[in-house]
Amino acid sequence: MKIAVIGASGSVGKAVVELLEIEHEVIKLGSNHGDIKLDISNRKSIRTAFDKIGRVDAIINAAGTVAFKPFGEYTDEDWEVGLQSKLMGQIRLAEEGSNYLNDGGSITLTSGITADYPIRFGISAAVVGGAIEYFAKSAALEAPRGIRINVVSPTVLDESLAAYGDFFPGFLSIPGKEVAKFYKRSILGIENGHVFKCFAGNS
Amino acid sequence: MKIAVIGASGSVGKAVVELLEIEHEVIKLGSNHGDIKLDISNRKSIRTAFDKIGRVDAIINAAGTVAFKPFGEYTDEDWEVGLQSKLMGQIRLAEEGSNYLNDGGSITLTSGITADYPIRFGISAAVVGGAIEYFAKSAALEAPRGIRINVVSPTVLDESLAAYGDFFPGFLSIPGKEVAKFYKRSILGIENGHVFKCFAGNS
Repeated sequence: MKIAVIGASGSVGKAVVELLEIEHEVIKLGSNHGDIKLDISNRKSIRTAFDKIGRVDAIINAAGTVAFKPFGEYTDEDWEVGLQSKLMGQIRLAEEGSNYLNDGGSITLTSGITADYPIRFGISAAVVGGAIEYFAKSAALEAPRGIRINVVSPTVLDESLAAYGDFFPGFLSIPGKEVAKFYKRSILGIENGHVFKCFAGNS
Repeated sequence: MKIAVIGASGSVGKAVVELLEIEHEVIKLGSNHGDIKLDISNRKSIRTAFDKIGRVDAIINAAGTVAFKPFGEYTDEDWEVGLQSKLMGQIRLAEEGSNYLNDGGSITLTSGITADYPIRFGISAAVVGGAIEYFAKSAALEAPRGIRINVVSPTVLDESLAAYGDFFPGFLSIPGKEVAKFYKRSILGIENGHVFKCFAGNS
């Protein structure tokens, strides 16, 4: 399979690339790193990048940021960070990228555990993560040519504990290589409009 | 109780006002109708409106629009309709409005059945409806002074069948006066971070 991975230099993206490169052709995309530059906040940038790549069998996104603030302290600009990056960035990628997918191809997006299990200062992360799950569930039913759309929702990664562990007090973490398996299952399996929740035990 | 109802002239808002006015002081707000004008896309407009009203015990929102398009045909501008109105409009209202709530007051927002049961052309409605549910679940845990935040998710109203029935083929509808009861339960009950789903039977 020919697979495009956006956000390939992040901790999730790196693990996904490592696993998939064993058996597939993986093209790495990102705003600053990777084989090809791509800005998910801009539809033209997405089309330009895929015009260079050509048709692919799967698109995986592990890019996207959000702002973290206490309730009541978000400005409209804080909200726009997550809305334009992690939410609309992934939606644009699915919408534009679907035109570059072979029949029966798949799109796998990324949400996060904070939609199901809120953390302090994580309201925006919960909103955009939850929203992208609803996007996948609904868009999967309308997407043409057998294209499937799924979401992977990871808990905090072992590799991210040093940087983000304090935001997830007591949460069980998971190694990136385990999270990567859910992306593999999404692209090689048959599930559609599904949210793969990588956090058994975090109830 | 002193209750502010935004979107008081819509089919849900009208039914809510009719039920709550029996026992409470209800202030009706809207972009074009009502006692006081208020534009939920603008934080200053929200503050100006509440400066006139003063402290309230409950805020109910039944306003907000989204665009309806097939998958792949949404422009960024189409997405912005729902993001800035039904999603950010309600978030702004909760964030700004909470400063005008008495201790133990409540905010009740509105999503919709299409998050759980997708309809054709309803991807944006599913995304913003689902997102507002995640907002309530997460924000409810951070809101100060005992403020509760809930969401009511109505199926299509009997009163809306003439206008929107074709978008909901085979869906069970519900009279506005039944939907209004869930808003009453939200403001007078103790539930918090809860999504009231007004669509038993629509499985």
